[in-house]
Order: sequence, then C-alpha cells, then structure tokens
Amino acid sequence: MFRTLAAETISKIGEKLLLKGWVNTIRDHGKVVFIDLRDRSGIVQVVGDEKLGKLRVEDVVEVSGVLNKRPEKMVNPEIATGKVEVQVENLKVLAPAAELPFDLGQESLKLDLPTLLDNRSLSLRHPRIKAIFQVQETIVQTFRSTMKNLGFTEFQAPTLVATATEGGAQIFPVKYFDYTVYLAQSPQFYKQIMVSAFERVFTVAHAYRAEPSVTTRHMTEYLGLDVEFGFIDSWQELMDTAEHLVKEIFRAVKENHAEILKMYQIDVPGLSAQVPRIKLKEAQEIIYKRTGRDIRQEPDLDPEGEREMWRWAQDEHDSELVFITHYPTKKRPMYTHPDPENPQETLSFDLIGRGQEWITGGQRINEYQKLVANIKKWKCDPKNFEVPYLQAFKYGMPPEGGFCLGLERITMNILGLSNVREATLFPRDMERVDIRLTEIRGKRKTNPNTT
Amino acid sequence: MFRTLAAETISKIGEKLLLKGWVNTIRDHGKVVFIDLRDRSGIVQVVGDEKLGKLRVEDVVEVSGVLNKRPEKMVNPEIATGKVEVQVENLKVLAPAAELPFDLGQESLKLDLPTLLDNRSLSLRHPRIKAIFQVQETIVQTFRSTMKNLGFTEFQAPTLVATATEGGAQIFPVKYFDYTVYLAQSPQFYKQIMVSAFERVFTVAHAYRAEPSVTTRHMTEYLGLDVEFGFIDSWQELMDTAEHLVKEIFRAVKENHAEILKMYQIDVPGLSAQVPRIKLKEAQEIIYKRTGRDIRQEPDLDPEGEREMWRWAQDEHDSELVFITHYPTKKRPMYTHPDPENPQETLSFDLIGRGQEWITGGQRINEYQKLVANIKKWKCDPKNFEVPYLQAFKYGMPPEGGFCLGLERITMNILGLSNVREATLFPRDMERVDIRLTEIRGKRKTNPNTT
Repeated sequence: MFRTLAAETISKIGEKLLLKGWVNTIRDHGKVVFIDLRDRSGIVQVVGDEKLGKLRVEDVVEVSGVLNKRPEKMVNPEIATGKVEVQVENLKVLAPAAELPFDLGQESLKLDLPTLLDNRSLSLRHPRIKAIFQVQETIVQTFRSTMKNLGFTEFQAPTLVATATEGGAQIFPVKYFDYTVYLAQSPQFYKQIMVSAFERVFTVAHAYRAEPSVTTRHMTEYLGLDVEFGFIDSWQELMDTAEHLVKEIFRAVKENHAEILKMYQIDVPGLSAQVPRIKLKEAQEIIYKRTGRDIRQEPDLDPEGEREMWRWAQDEHDSELVFITHYPTKKRPMYTHPDPENPQETLSFDLIGRGQEWITGGQRINEYQKLVANIKKWKCDPKNFEVPYLQAFKYGMPPEGGFCLGLERITMNILGLSNVREATLFPRDMERVDIRLTEIRGKRKTNPNTT
Repeated sequence: MFRTLAAETISKIGEKLLLKGWVNTIRDHGKVVFIDLRDRSGIVQVVGDEKLGKLRVEDVVEVSGVLNKRPEKMVNPEIATGKVEVQVENLKVLAPAAELPFDLGQESLKLDLPTLLDNRSLSLRHPRIKAIFQVQETIVQTFRSTMKNLGFTEFQAPTLVATATEGGAQIFPVKYFDYTVYLAQSPQFYKQIMVSAFERVFTVAHAYRAEPSVTTRHMTEYLGLDVEFGFIDSWQELMDTAEHLVKEIFRAVKENHAEILKMYQIDVPGLSAQVPRIKLKEAQEIIYKRTGRDIRQEPDLDPEGEREMWRWAQDEHDSELVFITHYPTKKRPMYTHPDPENPQETLSFDLIGRGQEWITGGQRINEYQKLVANIKKWKCDPKNFEVPYLQAFKYGMPPEGGFCLGLERITMNILGLSNVREATLFPRDMERVDIRLTEIRGKRKTNPNTT
C-alpha cells in the first residue's frame, strides 16, 4: 500500500489508507483517543482506542485505516482536513520520541531566543517557525526566476579568498595548509569579473563578517542575493532593477503564503507606490525637520534615522521602502563610482525596507586606470588585486553596477520578526555556532596552527 | 535608442540599431574592416572603414548603424547572424582593452591549465570556456526543479561549524574571535536535521576538504548538490531518486546545449538503460575476472577499478553509469545504516559516472539509541553531537537517507574535461587560491592568531 499524505486524504473517503508522520497532539478521552498526525503536507486527525493513549508527542508512526467523514459537530473548519478522520486499524511506531523540553503543541512558542536556538532541531518543527523558512525558500526562488527572466546567468562564487576583498579588519582568517587565506566578505570581485564574460550575473552567496558585536541585525555568516550587470546606461537602472526584484518577491510571498502572512498578522509592503529616491543629505535634512534630531554631519544614517525615513516614506509616498542615495565617497569601497557632478559623493544607494537596510548597491568604476588610481588612493597595492580582479578590467569592462539583498534581513522584515536570527536556520554570531561558544571556552579553545 | 542584442538583429533588416559589446575579432582589409561584435547573446558582424582598424580586440564598444543583408557569397552559415551585418555609422569605445597575453580568437584555447587559470578573468570570455559554466548553470537549475517536483524543500546550510562533522583531520580551522571553528566538510548533519522538520530537503552547499594532495579530481572547496529525505520504505528508493535526478540532468543538458555538446564532440550518457546496481565485493570479482587485477581485499574501488566498472557497465548493460553498493561498515561514516543481513556491510552506495565517483549516499541510522551507540563505537563523545544533531533524533526521526552529487565532477564528466578545475570558475587547491600560493610564501605566510 502506498503512503497517502495528510493533505491528500480529503478526496479518499471510504478508502483504506496508509499514513506516516509525527504525532502532533494527543487528546485522550479514555476509550477514544484522537491524534493529530503531522506530515510535510499538513495535519489529519486519527482516531482509535486506548492503545493510542500510550503514544508520545513527536513519535514517528505509520498508521493504516479507513478514512471517514467526521460527524457534523466534530468538523474543524480551521484546517483543510477538518471534515475527515482516519479510523486506526494498524499502528506502528517507526521511531519513538523522548519527552519534550517544552510544549510544541501551542499556537505560538513562547520561548526566549536563546532557548529557541538551544533547541533549534526541535523548534524548527513548529508550524510558525517552519513557516519562516518556507517564506525564505520562496524569496530565494523568486530572486532566481526574476533575474533569469531578465537574461541573467547564475554562477557559484567561491568563499575562500587570498586577500581581504573590501579592506577592513573584520575578516576571518583560515589556516590553509602553510598559508593563511580568508573567508569572503562578499562575492563582490567575482561578480564583477563575471560581468566581463557573461554581462549579467547573479548568485546566492555566503558572506562572512568578523564584527565583534552582537546586535539584532547582524550575524557572522549570512546570505547575500547578489546581482551585477554591465552596459548600464544610467545608474538609475540599478535601482529600477532592485525595485522590480523586491516587488516580485512581495508578489510571490503574498501569492504563495497568504496563510503564513495571516498567522503573522502582517502583509507584504504595498506594490503600487514608486519607491522614493532621496539623497543622504536630503534625508538628513528631512529627519532634522521632522524630529529636531541633527545628524546632518554624519556620513550615514543611524538605525533611528533609517526608521524615521521609513515613517517619512509612508507619510509622504505611501511606501514602506525608500532609496537613500549619494553616500560620501570616503565611506564607500574603493570601486564605487564617484558622482561626476560631485566627486565627494558616489553613485551608490541603500534600499531601506521597513526601517532597515535591505540592499546596498551602486555603479562601479569600470575603467582600469581609474580603478588602479582609486586603489592607490585607498592606500592599497594594486598588485594584490591584479589577479584575478584587475585583470577583468584591463581587458575591457563595460559600465556596470549591481547590488546585494540580504536574505535574512528581508525575510525578517517581511514577517515582522524582531531578530535576524529568527530568520536564519542555524544562526552564527560571536556567541553561538549552534552551541553557545562560552560553553567550550577553555575546553576547546585551541590554536589553529597547532591542531 | 534602445540596445539590440546580437541575436536579436536578424529580424531587423533595414533598421537602424544600437549595439554594445566586445570586439571579438578584427579582419582588416584596409579600406574595409570587419569586426565580430560579441555580447551575451552571441556574435554579429559589423563593417566599417579604416577607423575600425584602430580598435583592439576586447575593446568594449557601442556601435550604431543600419542592419543589412550580407551579399550572398559573404553569408556565414556557421553562425545564427551569418546572413546580416551592421554598417557602422557611429562608434564609441566605452572601455579600452590592453594587449592580450594570448589569442582569444582561436576556436580552442591551447593553453596549459596553470596559464588558463592565471588568466581566469580573460579565459572565461572564450566561448568554449564560457560554455562549461552555461552547462553547469543548467545542471544546478535542473537539480532544483527536479527536487521541487518531488516535493522537496530547498534550504541554506551554514558553512561554519563547531565540530568536525564526519571526523577525520582533513578540516580547515577558522580563527573565530577567541575560538576555533571549522569549515564544514559537508551539510550532512544539517540536511538530516532538516528532514525531521521538512521530510524532504535539498541544498546546493559549499564543502571544504583540507586534503594535502593534488589530483585532477579534488579541490579544497567544492559544491555539493545535497539531497535527504525521510519515510523511505527501502534504501533502493535513494538510488531510484539519484538515478532519476542524473537522467533529468542529462535530458536538460541535451535539450538546452546541443551546440555545446557538438563543440565538445560528446553526448550525454544514454537515458534508456537502467543503471546496474552491484555490490562492491561483486564489482571486485568482476574486475578480477576481466583484468586479472586483484583488489578483492580492498575496502573501496581505486580509480582504475572505477574506470573498469565503467567499461563493464557499458559492455554488459549499455550504461555509462553504475551503482556500487554495500561498502564496508568500517569505511563509512558512523551514521551509515548497517545492512541488517550483514552488519559488516552498509546500506550505502556510490554512483560511478564515466569512470568517476559522482554521487555518494545511503540510508542513515535514524534511531537515537543506535546512533548514540554507533558514535561511541567510533570512539567519539555523543555530547559533542547532542546540539543540534542528536537532538533531531531524540525527538523522533523517520527512516531516512540521502546522497550528494558533486557539481564540478558531473560537469567535468558530461563534457569530457580532463581536470575538475576546468569545471570550476575559481578553483581552490593546496597550490592556488586565484593566485599561486607559492608566490606569497614567506611574504604573506602569517599566523591567524596574530593577524
């Protein structure tokens, strides 16, 4: 007999079925026991005698029996299989579960984040937690399909690099035989190189930042949805493409996950408004005028400034998103294209979504000589960038640019989560790599050169 | 005026067009100069006066002019745009190219591999090299669509791990603030954990092996197409799924890349034959009988044994693929399910494709107590595996298994390449991370603990 999934049962009234899954909940009425059986498709009710009462929540079971209509007063309109139930004939425990450390059956797991993560392999089974990663899968797939439709080629970026890609000390060293290499801070150089061969490229890339700080928005390992393309006529095209992409993502999440959005009591940002594009300096003026808070001398927006611009964009443009443009040259990486009208500023942008930075991007310097000059200006040695990076520019690179969308950030903000770790299957930060690192202090603290 | 791509020209005879791309080749006849202009869609001929003769190969240019039919005798039946050409009216160099270190215009780049890789950013522009990564993109996309059609969920696996996942010393240490963490050898533990929440999962995962050896088949960083699923009735299902997957990949490559296969003078393996499944011990007997070479006491096939089984499968089963099964328990990782009929052997398999291992997989131990016992038997401490790995089993894990397909390996063998590095955009091995590491010996050799 073939297995039937929970969601497939409804059309099979009167048939004998084989079901497999986890015991989600047990309602023991003595001689009659009801079980909600959970599998990847959903939940279906199973009814049997007192033997079922001996089961434990999360036991993995195989059940066979006839599918019946439930009596009218037992119908549950809340679930798709609410009109049916399986009368157990045979039941086999495929794998028993130990007693749970917390109640997985409640509608929302009311655990603090450390407990949730200490029990990641269990908490992931909760429908509300699982839902986050179903939305995330849709975001990744929509990213790919949207870029493919625009003629982009997908590539796989390496994560081990010989030099720090964007400068800065916040980089993890790897002991690599007799050498030291590093974990890539981004696939930036590789996606630019790829433009010189494929014109339009994208990748889902692992990126690593050794920032010794703990915030609700940062992790040491995260995923970037990276885009780069050549032959742009204007850097505005980069923002057009970024805006198109996030709107396609909103559309797909709304279409595929209406129930999850309902569960989180949230909607995706509206699709109709055009996302306003506003210079950093103007944004700082707006914040000053609206709140009296003066950050006009800063080279960036602070988190509160990002939130205020979210409020402003809603008030003035009916938009939950806003592009902030023209960041100062000295605060952007050496490959950023300066604004020809004002070399103190760059053709760069951030997309602020629901008050947080989702995307960062801009036009790049594509002329070899200018790029070499800029590298020197940033006090770096062009020799260290010759192979493979500068090589791509030496032999003809079109005007180009791109952007990176933080996967966990957009997942978090679409669902209104309060910490980026909730939007990450196995979050890594300076305190945790699955286990809490403090627990291994002393015991496993070792020198990579001597292991 | 909007840009027209090379491939789009053919339907626009008589129209004035704007083209952008790279100067692929220049044929200078003095007063008449022909240029092949290359963009992401292909090549189109551009014709003009002696000014064109001043261009350099790989210059990035913008050309406008009218599209004409070529005179009958000038038609080139070899290319899609062979019947048309653009008569230049305006030409602008968007970015100049330096003189090339080798001729990119020849049909096949006759460079040794180190030169090819020393010039990766340039060699990638060659159509024959570029084609490899177009095929690779199709393989990855077909992997995903095939698994999605079977009800699998895609997830993103972390690459930083707190412990060595599968044991062994061949693991890269990362200096992680005050701690040492490691680069994942595979997403094995994570995909198993995911089964306990999602039942059927897959991921495209970075994997790292610190093997201090240089072969044509190994690199230190590679990509695994990883699959894992629960509620299997029999471990044969794993091989059924793996066989289905590779055949879908062959089908997609054949359908989408007929011209590339022609360029490489190769075809994908045949789809009709069922892939034979043969025990390791039987394979060793076959090799002994066919060649007299006695490897019957070995716990594995050696490379020559893999090639001989390829020949055998072709001779006896008209198949370029063969499953080798039942590897000895002592040679497989601790989570591998023993064969109930013979605990010295495991329910494991490799798929040998064109004489090389493409896939490795098997059924896993899903019962918590047995898994804990096996970890001890392997002389490891279960405490080091409790969070998050064993946790998933403690609370009910269905019978499950999976496999991993090496992306670079299958790309290499489908196209008949002789080195896996050719099938890798930016290959990393113990001698190279973009640059040759020997070039930085002494100069940049540093202690990760002191940088």
